[in-house]
Amino acid sequence: MKKVAVLGAGSWGTALAMVLCDNQHDVRLWTHNSEQKIKMEKDRKNLKYLPNIDLPDSLRLFDDLAKAIEDVEAIVLVVPTKAIRETCQKLNKVLKQKIPIIHGSKGIEPDSHFRISEMIKEEMLPELVDEVVALSGPSHAEEVSVKHPTTLTAASKSERNAIFTQDLFMNDYFRVYTSTDIIGVELGGALKNIIALGAGISDGLGYGDNAKAALITRGLAEITRLATMKGANPLTFIGLSGVGDLIVTCTSVHSRNWRAGNMLGKGLPLNEVLDQMGMIVEGIRTTEAVNQMAKQEKVEMPITAGIYNVIFEKKTPKEVVDHLMTRNRTNEIDDISTLLIDRFKH
Amino acid sequence: MKKVAVLGAGSWGTALAMVLCDNQHDVRLWTHNSEQKIKMEKDRKNLKYLPNIDLPDSLRLFDDLAKAIEDVEAIVLVVPTKAIRETCQKLNKVLKQKIPIIHGSKGIEPDSHFRISEMIKEEMLPELVDEVVALSGPSHAEEVSVKHPTTLTAASKSERNAIFTQDLFMNDYFRVYTSTDIIGVELGGALKNIIALGAGISDGLGYGDNAKAALITRGLAEITRLATMKGANPLTFIGLSGVGDLIVTCTSVHSRNWRAGNMLGKGLPLNEVLDQMGMIVEGIRTTEAVNQMAKQEKVEMPITAGIYNVIFEKKTPKEVVDHLMTRNRTNEIDDISTLLIDRFKH
Repeated sequence: MKKVAVLGAGSWGTALAMVLCDNQHDVRLWTHNSEQKIKMEKDRKNLKYLPNIDLPDSLRLFDDLAKAIEDVEAIVLVVPTKAIRETCQKLNKVLKQKIPIIHGSKGIEPDSHFRISEMIKEEMLPELVDEVVALSGPSHAEEVSVKHPTTLTAASKSERNAIFTQDLFMNDYFRVYTSTDIIGVELGGALKNIIALGAGISDGLGYGDNAKAALITRGLAEITRLATMKGANPLTFIGLSGVGDLIVTCTSVHSRNWRAGNMLGKGLPLNEVLDQMGMIVEGIRTTEAVNQMAKQEKVEMPITAGIYNVIFEKKTPKEVVDHLMTRNRTNEIDDISTLLIDRFKH
Repeated sequence: MKKVAVLGAGSWGTALAMVLCDNQHDVRLWTHNSEQKIKMEKDRKNLKYLPNIDLPDSLRLFDDLAKAIEDVEAIVLVVPTKAIRETCQKLNKVLKQKIPIIHGSKGIEPDSHFRISEMIKEEMLPELVDEVVALSGPSHAEEVSVKHPTTLTAASKSERNAIFTQDLFMNDYFRVYTSTDIIGVELGGALKNIIALGAGISDGLGYGDNAKAALITRGLAEITRLATMKGANPLTFIGLSGVGDLIVTCTSVHSRNWRAGNMLGKGLPLNEVLDQMGMIVEGIRTTEAVNQMAKQEKVEMPITAGIYNVIFEKKTPKEVVDHLMTRNRTNEIDDISTLLIDRFKH
């Protein structure tokens, strides 16, 4: 039994807290929003994010961060990407010692191109943080909350921290694999949203399964190429935070990125798409960031560039597809193989 | 312009012949069935397999193998797996010189565990065959026949033959990548059917996207593990004949393997499933063969073993899932990484 604080009471934070309660830990769920905390305490439900689920009796709710983290042995950070730095600053003021920090967020910071764990490490006082753990994989919170089988990867440069996370979460419906490739796991989770946009565009154009499978596969290849250049192990992309997360995101019509892409494919201009979505489409920001990263790293990413051109340069999806299909002839994996050979030779 | 014979007038053979006609080759489509040949000539359609499509005027039909292959510069072999050896024996009698043989079949021979190219090489006279090419990837024939964007891999130990195939087929809706990893490409195409069965079982049990993504991803990992032991490059499985083909097979309710798995997941016994399907379910034979191969090679394939146990050992799907979720804790990719390091070090 461990004392654990989960920071962020959205659907994923709440679902993770419930798994920890099931595992008999002493769990504190924190939200910065006092109203939400009071309401959840009264309802013993998270009506906004997981309306049909009763919170476990043992789950304690907090809006005071200092109290939430008092004596805890691990922190699970599940706030939105935009709130990561601010939450870390708050933690600096109240955390008293170095404990494992596990995060469940997905994204790339615009401009800095930082992964989440890089943001955490930059923001927190060095004496309070060692190697961060990223917990990522194909996981709708709603399914976890009803105990459907789910698998994730706990990745950290510290194998000890990855195994600690595995021990904390693993049970008979929640299976956790460890990995030391946090770069690959974090990039996989973030970059898949570009491909989900592309899958939506392909469907919006009225193309079939062949085209969508091509886009997903060749998209995965170019993401793997960029990530390998950034230090990831390309094999991570055969894994849960690569292929696994991609399948869930690209084949679900509930995916925001797929829906935005679908409208673009049908010919709607970007501003109308954003109006209709009425919320942030993560993949659009990620496409912009990754298009920049590819140029900096001199990595060829024709699908990302094509999606960028549809979104920001007013190219038609049809023009982009025609261009992609008639590019120079190439072999399938030899460039990644070359990167790999270089990696393992050193 | 090349003279090419396509052997086998099912939906895939016909669609490939149409691509070659579009590329201005002199194309001969052969079927062993004289009635079918006469009917197709009369209708100028392949009513049985691609009912809505007009055959190109330039496509010539044959039921005489010697005439079909007279003077051709390449053979495209698209007969069912079971007819491969017999067709090769016929070719031995009429083929006069060594020309590239490209095949578009997917499967593993029971007992011998041979890949298609191994069957071809064993069966044909050595003076008539050099390195076979496997043309494989996510491709419904119906979509190719209406020129929807499609991508495939042409794999051969002979890079020259792979590039020859790329040149023969590639156009603005049919993009071909080359690869020298024919082992990986052939195993990917065949072994994906096991995972499609598993995806159907998971859906039949009423589980959600998380479980299905887990099954597909961890299934892909164990297939990659076996294939790497057999000499494949694991990166092939990030490619079109790995992930790509898998996505098309596991997310389409038209997939025979998915449908058979779905019935098993709902609790129907194997004999009833086979009765209802009324045709061969390739994945069931492949599961049996691969379960044997895994034992021989001492490769851990828990998902294949679980599916084998459901089909042949009368375990319930629920028992198998519970067992899979509570297996020993493990890391995600390190065993494949180790195989890779070994491979590239030598």
